[in-house]
Amino acid sequence: MPYIPVEEHLPGITGLLEYRKDSAQPIRELTQLLLRGPSTLTEGERELIATIVSHNNECKFCTTAHTAAADLLLGECDTSEKVKKDIETSPVSEKMKALLTIAKQVQQSGKNVTDESVQRAKQAGATDLEIHDTVLIAALFCLYNRYVDGLSTVTPTDPAFYNGLADRIVNNGYKRLPQGYDHLKKESHS
Amino acid sequence: MPYIPVEEHLPGITGLLEYRKDSAQPIRELTQLLLRGPSTLTEGERELIATIVSHNNECKFCTTAHTAAADLLLGECDTSEKVKKDIETSPVSEKMKALLTIAKQVQQSGKNVTDESVQRAKQAGATDLEIHDTVLIAALFCLYNRYVDGLSTVTPTDPAFYNGLADRIVNNGYKRLPQGYDHLKKESHS
Repeated sequence: MPYIPVEEHLPGITGLLEYRKDSAQPIRELTQLLLRGPSTLTEGERELIATIVSHNNECKFCTTAHTAAADLLLGECDTSEKVKKDIETSPVSEKMKALLTIAKQVQQSGKNVTDESVQRAKQAGATDLEIHDTVLIAALFCLYNRYVDGLSTVTPTDPAFYNGLADRIVNNGYKRLPQGYDHLKKESHS
Repeated sequence: MPYIPVEEHLPGITGLLEYRKDSAQPIRELTQLLLRGPSTLTEGERELIATIVSHNNECKFCTTAHTAAADLLLGECDTSEKVKKDIETSPVSEKMKALLTIAKQVQQSGKNVTDESVQRAKQAGATDLEIHDTVLIAALFCLYNRYVDGLSTVTPTDPAFYNGLADRIVNNGYKRLPQGYDHLKKESHS
């Protein structure tokens, strides 16, 4: 049961973003920019970064939601599962292996990122901006995971909820749904 | 040496916020809202939350900067030092002890926040919004600390730098300095 009164039909992050809408706004904008804005990393690759961080923070809500988003963007469910199990043997590029390793280091602590892991990413063709964005996306999901679990929000168990959420964040992005689309929020939780 | 090319005269977070200005904008807005916006927690109390999280993440840049900001707002250097050493024996209210304890739990993991620590805060008079904001400020500094250390930014050793930075974030807030104030950035680093 959540530690603060959030709307019952809005589990996980969704209720928190409605609870304080003014702080939600810049969080939504930052997420939209980093995960959906122009980038040389695909949207699927960026969702994998969100997934590996949430998985290692053991945040079930975020892990399930971003796994579903990555799967929808990649068109298959194999890569996200393998990335969570073992980055090195997962079916992603050498550059993504290096960036996902950096993201996993950031999840533990910023201090855990090593010269070696950054050099590996650069040698695999990662740009400075891709390294920057990987660190910032990983740091952002350390915020999200703590926000969601630190207030003990509800984690739905029905996969249909996460499929609905993934559909929304893939097709509408992370900005607030415009007025008139509120039914989507409720339907996706039924 | 930073892992990406940031401006040499801008250490810690300052160079990162200039490196990618579009992602910096919502980060600045969120920080301004949470640390300087209307709240029943004083600005000094909110800087103490930033300080305890940065201290426990061992992020030297953020800890020194927010300790200096808290000290400036509180008008003394004793409280921040004692909070960092031991929340329970520090000279803050029972409500702040409870909220700082929650912040410290969030620093480790959202899952570490307990029913007991939340009940203690509520019994000491903390509102739901104060508990929400404490968790979100703590989560935000988990982002900052990882961003700053994950890209291996420079940590100045001269206390004068942090006093200049504290003066700026106390008197100008977290939004970008308006044009014409750029000299402040450089002077504070000399």
